[in-house]
Amino acid sequence: MKAVILAAGCAKRMGGEPKPLIKLFGLPIIEHTIRKLKGYEIIVVYHKKEIADYIKEKFPDIKLVYNNQPDKENGWSLYLARDFINDDFILLMADHFYGEKFFNFVRKKETTVFVSKHCSDAVEATKVKVSGNKVVDIGKELKEYDYFDTGLFYCKREIFDFIEKLKEKKEGIKLAEVIKEMAKEGKVSYEVVDDYWIDIDTREELKKAEKLVEKSLIKKTDGIVSRNLNRKISTKITKFLLRYDSITPNLMTFISFLLGIFSSFLFLVKLFIPAGLMTQFCSIIDGCDGEIARIKNMKTRFGAVIDALLDRYADILIVFGMFYAYGIFSTIPLIAFSLALVGCVLPSYVHHMTNIRLSIFGRDVRLFIIMIGGILSYFNIDFLFYTLLFLGIMMNFGVIITTYMGAKVL
Amino acid sequence: MKAVILAAGCAKRMGGEPKPLIKLFGLPIIEHTIRKLKGYEIIVVYHKKEIADYIKEKFPDIKLVYNNQPDKENGWSLYLARDFINDDFILLMADHFYGEKFFNFVRKKETTVFVSKHCSDAVEATKVKVSGNKVVDIGKELKEYDYFDTGLFYCKREIFDFIEKLKEKKEGIKLAEVIKEMAKEGKVSYEVVDDYWIDIDTREELKKAEKLVEKSLIKKTDGIVSRNLNRKISTKITKFLLRYDSITPNLMTFISFLLGIFSSFLFLVKLFIPAGLMTQFCSIIDGCDGEIARIKNMKTRFGAVIDALLDRYADILIVFGMFYAYGIFSTIPLIAFSLALVGCVLPSYVHHMTNIRLSIFGRDVRLFIIMIGGILSYFNIDFLFYTLLFLGIMMNFGVIITTYMGAKVL
Repeated sequence: MKAVILAAGCAKRMGGEPKPLIKLFGLPIIEHTIRKLKGYEIIVVYHKKEIADYIKEKFPDIKLVYNNQPDKENGWSLYLARDFINDDFILLMADHFYGEKFFNFVRKKETTVFVSKHCSDAVEATKVKVSGNKVVDIGKELKEYDYFDTGLFYCKREIFDFIEKLKEKKEGIKLAEVIKEMAKEGKVSYEVVDDYWIDIDTREELKKAEKLVEKSLIKKTDGIVSRNLNRKISTKITKFLLRYDSITPNLMTFISFLLGIFSSFLFLVKLFIPAGLMTQFCSIIDGCDGEIARIKNMKTRFGAVIDALLDRYADILIVFGMFYAYGIFSTIPLIAFSLALVGCVLPSYVHHMTNIRLSIFGRDVRLFIIMIGGILSYFNIDFLFYTLLFLGIMMNFGVIITTYMGAKVL
Repeated sequence: MKAVILAAGCAKRMGGEPKPLIKLFGLPIIEHTIRKLKGYEIIVVYHKKEIADYIKEKFPDIKLVYNNQPDKENGWSLYLARDFINDDFILLMADHFYGEKFFNFVRKKETTVFVSKHCSDAVEATKVKVSGNKVVDIGKELKEYDYFDTGLFYCKREIFDFIEKLKEKKEGIKLAEVIKEMAKEGKVSYEVVDDYWIDIDTREELKKAEKLVEKSLIKKTDGIVSRNLNRKISTKITKFLLRYDSITPNLMTFISFLLGIFSSFLFLVKLFIPAGLMTQFCSIIDGCDGEIARIKNMKTRFGAVIDALLDRYADILIVFGMFYAYGIFSTIPLIAFSLALVGCVLPSYVHHMTNIRLSIFGRDVRLFIIMIGGILSYFNIDFLFYTLLFLGIMMNFGVIITTYMGAKVL
């Protein structure tokens, strides 16, 4: 399917750049939408040269349509794309930010307005009045309305016929007017989407959108350390790194692995405080690959496998480094070491088999304990042993608990 | 849905017992069918008291219907069950053995004969002639035919009306005659099933069925040691154990785990040859839980999880036992031990994540190597170290290879 992004009518500026190119969490606002539309043939209608330059360089596959009369409003912008469209299509606004749930499009029988119960600026927003499953009125000035128009539409090609009719009467054609005409003939449905969206008109709205992106990066399965410490830092790093196209999720996976190796090395050479801190840093950076993959829509199953596997190996190396630095290879330390070693792998193993994840036995907690243990061992080397013993018992206990819980649900 | 098993007309005997009770791979022939019908409400029509006694004791939920005139043939037997049936039902013969593929029943519009291209005794078998999707003729004496009747039917309740019509004309009513009458009115379809089935009339056919059961226990994913050694022994043990209802798959999982602990203990006390042999025995017994679960239709996801997890722990203990017995805890042996330890878990871990299983890195191979290494270390204790090093390198190499292959398919 094709998707048309309207980027010509965004006259209002916030600073020097055209609005769609303003950075939202490190990426131009329009790029968030482009990336979520992976798999669609995208057409961008633009007016400002900067937008065309940016698209050409970063997304050469995108079809560019030039609008030399942006004052003729967004309906006219859409009309210019008509020759490239021969079927149903998705229509979006370049200066809006949409949450992920907006992007699950299925084939529909009618032109459909995606609407929301919420909006960031009820004065500026276009309102939608519905009856049954039909849109009956739409416009900024509606006194009575049920929802807000999110600027996202599923369109039948017949929308161009309605634009043509309006074109004969007047110069500027607003999309809302087109939809209104269609609605009069009962040709417009609506769909309520329960996810955030923002029409970014002000600095405040941009900030709000940034907060929403940041929040979307926190996974439900995040452990206590991840949620309260790691994510706060890793999202900042991700935001910074997003501007560099060469920094892929898999590269970050690899860097996090290297940090794990380095932290193992620091334990081996008995630099315990740096080793502990490096372990925690490795844990923080471990969040970036997933965050970048999510925002850039680059998630792959293989990426997830490599990430999981390298995490295991990094932990194994760190645990080995701790034990080797401890240097007393008698029975009890050997047992503690063995428990800790398999405790780096088995919790994730049972998680994959049972689909139960107890976040207290996650990697974030494990590496946090190692950081604490590492720092303490600077003062008393026995803490290396205590940490391994504690980790070993805790993680294998977690394995048993998870399996026991699995008994109830499997 | 209900299922009717006809066990009254099996007049022919093979030895002292009624045919449905003759042991096929440790279980009465009829029990194989009963277990595969898990989830169905089963009705068994019987004549011999032994059959009723056996069903009452083992499967008290099954409805028993007594046929005091077994010489009136199997059509009459079925007719006796009519009062318990108010909808479509499955019909099977108590002295037939059917492969698993026969038991995927979906709702059908017509009475359907499950047919096969193959049969074990073409003279005795009932033949089926078809045209389009309809059965046009059925009977033992057909000269021209397309398939063999497997004695398994999906029946509409109208079959009882046809039996009633035949009942007025004659005494004994064969099922084939009933189907033939229905077929005349175009009321019978057929479905070809590509799996084995045997009407067990002779000792030879019983042996053939046993071979088929044994073959069905070999998994496609079985490794080289499992296929060529372990399965040959474990299936014999399973056949013996099947007669004991108290021996569940989970019990066997636990026994195999105990054998692993015992083998670790034997390594710890430096009884290397017994330790090696016990490891291999543990590996053999590890097959029994799945085999019993498969034949008794007791497979559960939780059983599979517990099995996988206890296997990992058993291997970890064995590897620990070997290393501890070796007794030299310097750098290189420590590395070998660590690699071997995580090599007990990681191959299975990546298998679960990538869905790729390279059987050469399976548990059967791992434990076989430990057996060899254990025996050799009786002659030279360094073989404990060599075995750990070899295992560690091999298994982690397997992890890398599997992940690399995953890159192509994920």
